Amino acid sequence: MGDTQDYFSRRAALIQEDKSLRRENKSLRSLTNNELAADKIVRHIRAEEAVSIWGVEHDEVSHPFPGMEFLTSKRIIDQTKIFKIISKMPKGALLHAHIDATVDKGYLLELALKEPFMHVRASCVITAANSTTAVPEFRAFKEVQLSQSASVTDLDYPADSWIPLHQARESFSLGGPDGFDKWALGAMVINPAEAYGTHNTVTKIWQKFQSTFRATAGLTMYRPIFRQFLRRFLMESIGDGISYMEPRINFFDKFMFDADGNETVPHREWLLDFGQAISEVRAALREQGREEVFVGAKFIYTTLRILSPEELEWYLEDCIALKQEFPDLIAGFDLVGDENVARPLIDYIEPLLAFKQRVKDLGLDLPLILHAGETLSDGGKADNNLYDALLLGTKRIGHGFSIVKHPKLMQLCREKGIALEVCPISNEILRLTTSIPMHPLPVMINQGVPVTLNSDDPSVFGAMGLSYDFYQVFVSSETTGLITLKQIALDSIEFSTLDTEEKARAASVWEKRWHEFVDDLVNNSGIAAD
Amino acid sequence: MGDTQDYFSRRAALIQEDKSLRRENKSLRSLTNNELAADKIVRHIRAEEAVSIWGVEHDEVSHPFPGMEFLTSKRIIDQTKIFKIISKMPKGALLHAHIDATVDKGYLLELALKEPFMHVRASCVITAANSTTAVPEFRAFKEVQLSQSASVTDLDYPADSWIPLHQARESFSLGGPDGFDKWALGAMVINPAEAYGTHNTVTKIWQKFQSTFRATAGLTMYRPIFRQFLRRFLMESIGDGISYMEPRINFFDKFMFDADGNETVPHREWLLDFGQAISEVRAALREQGREEVFVGAKFIYTTLRILSPEELEWYLEDCIALKQEFPDLIAGFDLVGDENVARPLIDYIEPLLAFKQRVKDLGLDLPLILHAGETLSDGGKADNNLYDALLLGTKRIGHGFSIVKHPKLMQLCREKGIALEVCPISNEILRLTTSIPMHPLPVMINQGVPVTLNSDDPSVFGAMGLSYDFYQVFVSSETTGLITLKQIALDSIEFSTLDTEEKARAASVWEKRWHEFVDDLVNNSGIAAD
Repeated sequence: MGDTQDYFSRRAALIQEDKSLRRENKSLRSLTNNELAADKIVRHIRAEEAVSIWGVEHDEVSHPFPGMEFLTSKRIIDQTKIFKIISKMPKGALLHAHIDATVDKGYLLELALKEPFMHVRASCVITAANSTTAVPEFRAFKEVQLSQSASVTDLDYPADSWIPLHQARESFSLGGPDGFDKWALGAMVINPAEAYGTHNTVTKIWQKFQSTFRATAGLTMYRPIFRQFLRRFLMESIGDGISYMEPRINFFDKFMFDADGNETVPHREWLLDFGQAISEVRAALREQGREEVFVGAKFIYTTLRILSPEELEWYLEDCIALKQEFPDLIAGFDLVGDENVARPLIDYIEPLLAFKQRVKDLGLDLPLILHAGETLSDGGKADNNLYDALLLGTKRIGHGFSIVKHPKLMQLCREKGIALEVCPISNEILRLTTSIPMHPLPVMINQGVPVTLNSDDPSVFGAMGLSYDFYQVFVSSETTGLITLKQIALDSIEFSTLDTEEKARAASVWEKRWHEFVDDLVNNSGIAAD
Repeated sequence: MGDTQDYFSRRAALIQEDKSLRRENKSLRSLTNNELAADKIVRHIRAEEAVSIWGVEHDEVSHPFPGMEFLTSKRIIDQTKIFKIISKMPKGALLHAHIDATVDKGYLLELALKEPFMHVRASCVITAANSTTAVPEFRAFKEVQLSQSASVTDLDYPADSWIPLHQARESFSLGGPDGFDKWALGAMVINPAEAYGTHNTVTKIWQKFQSTFRATAGLTMYRPIFRQFLRRFLMESIGDGISYMEPRINFFDKFMFDADGNETVPHREWLLDFGQAISEVRAALREQGREEVFVGAKFIYTTLRILSPEELEWYLEDCIALKQEFPDLIAGFDLVGDENVARPLIDYIEPLLAFKQRVKDLGLDLPLILHAGETLSDGGKADNNLYDALLLGTKRIGHGFSIVKHPKLMQLCREKGIALEVCPISNEILRLTTSIPMHPLPVMINQGVPVTLNSDDPSVFGAMGLSYDFYQVFVSSETTGLITLKQIALDSIEFSTLDTEEKARAASVWEKRWHEFVDDLVNNSGIAAD
């Protein structure tokens, strides 16, 4: 008996030591009674729903379990109490999202249909056989373009010829306007049959993923639409409890299309639009008396890892110039693309080192915030990008999925305060992991690496806001509690590019909303706290 | 330029530091020229085959990539040069395999067909509709049993009634003997449609997995067959370059069926048969003048995690008694079953602590060698088994899949020399990971945790020997080289239960065979080493 008691105390000590690096440990010491009660409540509901929701059969879902494939289970998630609770939680900051993939594709198409001179084309006649793979392309002109065919489905449709959008949609012979919308929207999102069937590898799903950007580029890069979706992005994020955003914007194209359909709008005008959208949203919130829910937003300047090192130099200078003109709207610099295929960071060492020196000389607050390790590779170029991202002094790491293989790099992140921008649903749909229980997030958390949760490309995945990512993480681990989510939210503010004073203000507003959320949960859950 | 040079030297230092815990580092300092050349050769062939074999389309394999789903890709693996090379490599010890799932199921059925009084039954009439799910059961009797129906496919077949095997097979109305074999063998193995389709979750595949044991139990637990498959297991393992084995045997049933079909053979007789098989194999090898390829074999005593703690006591005493009678044939004690469903180790703390004390008092070398962490859970009972396995002083950890989430536990394994018995193909087919690149093995290796590679249930997976597991691991990482495999093989000897002297002898024989393997590779590869 004495032996057993001794065993249990050694066991408790070992578990505590094993968890000693977890960042939430600090908070654990100073929780309010309501926080403790709320944590118990959500754990209780989670356990209950693991049986009542995830333990039973559902139509069209052959193997339900918590944290399963998102595209198959979204409708189930929507029904859960846990999702409803998490939807109300204040999330802190969104630190990893590509702006052109943040706004609902249905809304984007609605915006397009309001533009009288928007046109559409395809690279071949659209048929029932190719409609799931052939991608539409959009473009606005100053006036209606004459077209030989009524729609892209006509047998005599000349490949790549423009047709007015409304006409092409009305005359779409595969089901009329509904059929057209199905075709166009299908090209803009990833569906379950693709992610989990036809494109079920990282290589294949990236091909589909990239084609969704081609399908929407003509809309998002059309200034009248661009302006509207910036506002939509801000408002929807705020609606999901996000109070600050650092979306990445792709500045690879040097010009956007203007209202007349000419490719003439330079990057600085994009930033003017962004600043304008922020001001408008702030004003609207002020009118509603809830200005405090929105701290602000900045762009992370990105271009593509297909550039030569020489070509990159122009973008680095462009980024510096924009930062000088719009210091409050540029958060940092990044390079994007499928790391398994694109050039590794090491190729760009010379221009990036020069950039750092220039930034330092100019006294700018313009960090690198680099994607790295978004890969299953072990020791390949995408995995090795982690070494370069850290040596280049990246402020955070975009994804960092493969960092769990690197003890020294996790130690660096822990000691230097370099947060990971983890994107659980993105990683799952892009096939780095098959489900969230298989995701390395618990390794990161238990190693004391600061993590934030992010949506990456929510409109491609149908996972708008941050609530779905928080949900998937919360239900996939019995260790994770409400206080883990609290720490993740606090860290998203802590590791943002806000300055010290802004962070303090953002954290203080967040704390206030958090306690409202917790109190509401305890008072209205209908579940005894113990 | 100076900056860049400085960058590259800091980069090299960081990579080295990051990899500083890898156990192969010791060997790296003292490699022969031929080892260096052989490592280059296999890396070269691996890179070539990643393109020429894994980068092209294959019939019926929709998305080839190195380390992909084993059941789909086995035929491709068989064609590769890397597999042919790895097949010849001396593997060291096999430390994790369940003896009743180690012998080819076709061979098992052949053995059954040689037994004149072997019978078969089913729990229902076998039809085309249920033949992929209904499981046969086998049993030998002293004489032929009268049966009402000709076979289990007869419409009037009385459920659970025994039919002589030959008769049931000849009269099997769904394709005759071939149809019968397909039905019976299908019930004994996991096929790709099950693992990757109908049973594509841990929970579901375990149901199929466990039914394969029910389907073969009547054969493996029939003493005349048991004796033959023990020899087959030893010979086939030796043929694959394995020189020492510690298979687990399930002693849950207290008696095996004797030649007359009576359940009368106690555990000590199983061990007599095992000792006999070892002697026979040793004699056969001696005749061939190659006795040195076989060091020996021991059983790890296992029973099931469905027992009550009180029931467990009988087995622990039984294990001690067998160890006392057959000190050279019992390696340790373990408890098996699906950890996600079965009782956790903590339930058995009292009897297990008492067992340890008894073993100590008796001066026996009888360690616990416990399964733990074979799970996707984070903080659930299966994951928490790791704490108990380590606190109970387990000699090695069976699987330890989820240990990568536990920094302190990895440190303990590293410092105390507790090896993981990693089973890559098993983990993939039982859906803990979807492919080997997604497996946490690189985390374990980079954390300096000793790892061994194991086949677990090779005949259920169609992955006979250790070569397939070594292959999958080797092609799934660019960091892994031939020297990594060398370290893994050496560690399998180091962390076996052989005594110091036996280990030294085993390692020395292994070294000799290793250098023959390496020299052969360099001299006959037809590839210039540099």
